[in-house]
Amino acid sequence: MPLLVVGSVALDSVETPTDKRENVLGGSAVYFSYAASYFSPVRLMGVVGDDWPAEHTGLLQKRGIDTAGLHVVRGGKTFRWSGKYHEDMNTRDTLEVHLNVFEKFDPVLPADYKRCEFLFLANGSPTVQMKVLDQVGGPRLVVADTMDLWIKIQHDELMKLLKRIDGLVLNDSEAKLLTDDDNLVRAGHKVRRMGPQFVVIKKGEHGAMFFSEHETYVLPAYPTENVIDPTGAGDSFAGGMLGYLAANGEFSPKTLKEAMAYGIIVASFNVEDFSLARMQGIERADLDQRLAEYRKMLTF
Amino acid sequence: MPLLVVGSVALDSVETPTDKRENVLGGSAVYFSYAASYFSPVRLMGVVGDDWPAEHTGLLQKRGIDTAGLHVVRGGKTFRWSGKYHEDMNTRDTLEVHLNVFEKFDPVLPADYKRCEFLFLANGSPTVQMKVLDQVGGPRLVVADTMDLWIKIQHDELMKLLKRIDGLVLNDSEAKLLTDDDNLVRAGHKVRRMGPQFVVIKKGEHGAMFFSEHETYVLPAYPTENVIDPTGAGDSFAGGMLGYLAANGEFSPKTLKEAMAYGIIVASFNVEDFSLARMQGIERADLDQRLAEYRKMLTF
Repeated sequence: MPLLVVGSVALDSVETPTDKRENVLGGSAVYFSYAASYFSPVRLMGVVGDDWPAEHTGLLQKRGIDTAGLHVVRGGKTFRWSGKYHEDMNTRDTLEVHLNVFEKFDPVLPADYKRCEFLFLANGSPTVQMKVLDQVGGPRLVVADTMDLWIKIQHDELMKLLKRIDGLVLNDSEAKLLTDDDNLVRAGHKVRRMGPQFVVIKKGEHGAMFFSEHETYVLPAYPTENVIDPTGAGDSFAGGMLGYLAANGEFSPKTLKEAMAYGIIVASFNVEDFSLARMQGIERADLDQRLAEYRKMLTF
Repeated sequence: MPLLVVGSVALDSVETPTDKRENVLGGSAVYFSYAASYFSPVRLMGVVGDDWPAEHTGLLQKRGIDTAGLHVVRGGKTFRWSGKYHEDMNTRDTLEVHLNVFEKFDPVLPADYKRCEFLFLANGSPTVQMKVLDQVGGPRLVVADTMDLWIKIQHDELMKLLKRIDGLVLNDSEAKLLTDDDNLVRAGHKVRRMGPQFVVIKKGEHGAMFFSEHETYVLPAYPTENVIDPTGAGDSFAGGMLGYLAANGEFSPKTLKEAMAYGIIVASFNVEDFSLARMQGIERADLDQRLAEYRKMLTF
């Protein structure tokens, strides 16, 4: 079942304690769609400038991702982000953000995009996220991501959005900020009571927590000693999760937990190199093999 | 099979963001032995002053803990620790430490203690830990804890100890300090190569990681919204783990993982109140029930 993602498409410059890369392929919608493509057809909606290298689009298309919704603004520049990771590789400083064409991103969905029944609203302004939602006819599952900026400056809009979506994915510090609660178990359920049927709190190297009315659980990250670049881990996680749900065409509690596990596995590959470099070298079979190891790890 | 623990016995004063307690029962050997007592006979070796309330000893004996090795120094004062937890409840500041009689703790084991085949050297100076080890005849399993202080000021002694023990339990920041590596997967294996057959890295609210030559895994903490006082969580974890191993009389990879899970469950109860208050209200059946929930949580 096709899965639609709307979000940022970017050129990232990333510095880690031991290495760096400049102007590499990045952005929430890119990481998400690449991860999801291992499971389900994906349609990507985003915007770039004419500095966007055509080979990046080719890379996405090679994985079957529909890029008909990737709009190129003539004379515009692509969104650029640069950041520097701390020694622990779990925290980072944003050095520069140039929104460029993303600042005025006003997504108008192509006709066939509007019929997507599975929708992921990647991190962006709640106003834009709701504009997208308004264009999609009767989606079966809508999941959104958000960030500290929107919690602070578009709180009311965000609260409106939360009442219109099925699931929210956010990280631990954002969940604490949104609920003013330092206990993640309480925070998760507080967010859920703001609207969504389920909430996923991402904890970086410590895994992810899931909250629904009848379920509370946590799954650890897959332990890898090869953490090269954590950029995009959260979006890869969401991509793996939603891709698996879209492929199954349903989101029962059982399928949701399997989807969480697949998200964790995809993210564990993503962090093993810069940009999409590690992901380009893997197939679905690699995900399945690591998932089997992960399942064994959690069995006692 | 009896399990021997040698470590601190203390009176703690604990402040959390919402509450506080003064001079309550604490200390690594106390938390450890109480947790272990749900699984196996326990012999406790420690030292207190004559300010030690007799009812504390009674509380331990009520759980069948052998306190013959709890030495009372006439005219001495019991080890006192006071600390204050931050809002996140996962980090704390130590406000005061008065070692008192613990400063000159020179454990001389009673005869039947020397025959214990399962031994836990709770956090203490590596010199004292080795003195204990010298007195035990042919133990089958020796596990030690350590802390940043000893890594810094008794590094050589600690390295000697590591070659004489089967397992080391330490927390994430200590593992990073000991190995100068910020990646916990690499750090765990580096510690293992310093001597012990297995290493357990405790991550507080994020669970624990296990490392042996052929295995690397992580188990999350049991998610509880009721974190009242995390003091003693690490020692309760170790107590549950070692108690389970002693009860089974072996430490195969399968049993070790079950033991880790039980340690996590015991710790999840321990943090639900100050001192041993929550633990006093539970039976082995409560641990088994929560373990079943935990196992279900990790099954997909």
